[in-house]
Amino acid sequence: MDINEESLELHKKLRGKIEVRSKVSINNKKDLSLAYTPGVAEVCRVIHSNKEKVYDYTSKGNMVAVISDGSAVLGLGNIGAEASLPVMEGKAILFKEFADIDAFPIILNKQDIQETINTIKNISPGFGGINLEDFKAPECFEIEAALQDLGIPVMHDDQHGTAVVVLAGLINALKLKGSDKKDVGIVLNGTGAAGVAITRILLEYGFKNIILVDSKGTIYRGRKDLNEIKKELAELTNKELIKGGLRDALEGVDIFIGVSKGNLLTKDMIGVMNEKPIIFALANPTPEIMPDLAKEAGAFIIATGRSDFPNQVNNVLAFPGIFRGALDIRAKRITNKMKIAAAEALASLVAEPSVDMIIPHSLDKTVVPRVAEAVKKAYF
Amino acid sequence: MDINEESLELHKKLRGKIEVRSKVSINNKKDLSLAYTPGVAEVCRVIHSNKEKVYDYTSKGNMVAVISDGSAVLGLGNIGAEASLPVMEGKAILFKEFADIDAFPIILNKQDIQETINTIKNISPGFGGINLEDFKAPECFEIEAALQDLGIPVMHDDQHGTAVVVLAGLINALKLKGSDKKDVGIVLNGTGAAGVAITRILLEYGFKNIILVDSKGTIYRGRKDLNEIKKELAELTNKELIKGGLRDALEGVDIFIGVSKGNLLTKDMIGVMNEKPIIFALANPTPEIMPDLAKEAGAFIIATGRSDFPNQVNNVLAFPGIFRGALDIRAKRITNKMKIAAAEALASLVAEPSVDMIIPHSLDKTVVPRVAEAVKKAYF
Repeated sequence: MDINEESLELHKKLRGKIEVRSKVSINNKKDLSLAYTPGVAEVCRVIHSNKEKVYDYTSKGNMVAVISDGSAVLGLGNIGAEASLPVMEGKAILFKEFADIDAFPIILNKQDIQETINTIKNISPGFGGINLEDFKAPECFEIEAALQDLGIPVMHDDQHGTAVVVLAGLINALKLKGSDKKDVGIVLNGTGAAGVAITRILLEYGFKNIILVDSKGTIYRGRKDLNEIKKELAELTNKELIKGGLRDALEGVDIFIGVSKGNLLTKDMIGVMNEKPIIFALANPTPEIMPDLAKEAGAFIIATGRSDFPNQVNNVLAFPGIFRGALDIRAKRITNKMKIAAAEALASLVAEPSVDMIIPHSLDKTVVPRVAEAVKKAYF
Repeated sequence: MDINEESLELHKKLRGKIEVRSKVSINNKKDLSLAYTPGVAEVCRVIHSNKEKVYDYTSKGNMVAVISDGSAVLGLGNIGAEASLPVMEGKAILFKEFADIDAFPIILNKQDIQETINTIKNISPGFGGINLEDFKAPECFEIEAALQDLGIPVMHDDQHGTAVVVLAGLINALKLKGSDKKDVGIVLNGTGAAGVAITRILLEYGFKNIILVDSKGTIYRGRKDLNEIKKELAELTNKELIKGGLRDALEGVDIFIGVSKGNLLTKDMIGVMNEKPIIFALANPTPEIMPDLAKEAGAFIIATGRSDFPNQVNNVLAFPGIFRGALDIRAKRITNKMKIAAAEALASLVAEPSVDMIIPHSLDKTVVPRVAEAVKKAYF
């Protein structure tokens, strides 16, 4: 039985991967009067007189909503709410297993920016944090931005989870290559949710030379067909206004980061890069170039999104620790400093980086506490 | 330590009464690849090709949202979302404990009819049913009505849970009194959520003579200050157009049902009722008349909302079984026939009714399966 059939069978047997459990049992009138009426009325009164007490007496403080409209699910695209639910349940159990966070999937009937923002605001009081998942670009940017003043951390994981792990990997890759972030050239192929967030965190961290490439070629100030986000990024990248395709962009740069489509990076293209090229081929399930081919072409370090090759860029290294830290200190938002701190903590968890080990293993249980700790410190 | 302090302490210790648990454990790459990527993609594809399959492969089919805007919480009134959360969590654990239904509290930031309807529609795809809770009247009627075509059962429990248990109690009370539903006169004091729903189910069941009383007196066709709901009910009740206060309404009737305020029914008023008066004094925590006083005034049967007197009218006798039945058959709504079937099942669970036993005990575990069974049969 292949993995697909096995997964179907597991899901059918379980009828969903999550359940809501009671922490108290109700066996007699006394139990009922404490957990429910009349005793619960006193808890209501206390919270009514001081809203902040909701953190002390309810599940809010450890409860994260995993919200999706199903518009950009895995590599499957816009498959809608219902079909996205198995992924959101999966995400919820990762929160629980990795960070002991209660997480609950909320899937949305409509794909409309304002409707999504209103709905999320409206259901927010019961949650301590919100993980946006699998919203497509560019809608995801506006939705996430509109929710930053909600008073609880709101993060689009497809953006920032990926960006944090990529930065962590680059920190260790540069150590091995012996280069400084200020000197290296980066080509980033793909300007969806992950591509935009990676660009932003790399700029914030101090990388200077980044060229973005989309399906039409390099992005430069003045290109006619750019949307708002790309216009904004064109101001901050590609200072030399390099035009052309991916191959043109790659000439003489040190790092390729792909968050795009399978098989679009060739051995030939790697050949035009600087010595010791670093390749992050993150398209899933088929990377922009398969690791063996990249190695043949002279790649120094290769990272992918897959678990069957070394250096897996997996969001599970980031979001559980980031939310754990944010919830623990009741952070009102997740700041850039917190994301960078998470990346640095992740990088530092690899005691002795090597070309096949620039990122901790996805199932490494020491990751969450270290990332959470770093995130907390960075908030203040 | 009194019950209030003890309840506060319990809630503080637990930090919320619910948790979201994973049904699978993630210990290795294989686990991850089955419950999450890449295996989960196949489950998504199957649901994408046939939306109904979401019931087979996710938690939707057994998941109920317990939704409130905190506008009419217990006897506490409009205390807002946060302060209502302990009640909604309590409700969620009752669903689990009594009917093995996973239930999750959703509390709403805004108290606006249209916003509430939109929000609930928008988050509905992940739920198999929706329990509306503690919405104030008359807004609750419009909200509930607007959600009846959502394709999943939506029920405002403060209305129908109470109505079902009241009807069950009346069925047995009339057996003991030896009267027929077509002949008895009923005065119903209080026209909030519960009062309106009780009126409707009693009319549907075949009671003929009902007089509603609100804070201004009896409700009759032509009274000037009636809102829409009361106008509608004025057409169906008080055929003799009796005017005046509660005392005037009670003359010569058999049954008093109070869903109003404590201590507003006097011994004197019971004195003007027919022989063997039946008193449902359901205001909480202080009934419209205390049972000992009612008995002194000649009451034949007395029911209250309290667990420390016989004949407790407690919604927990109704909603778990109603939703269990509705979910089991994937009912698209909860019909009047299902509610009446639930009431009849409840009544029949009391093998030998007596004046102190017209309703099953709240913690009677035989209730849910019987109610669920009756509800299922009534749907088809």
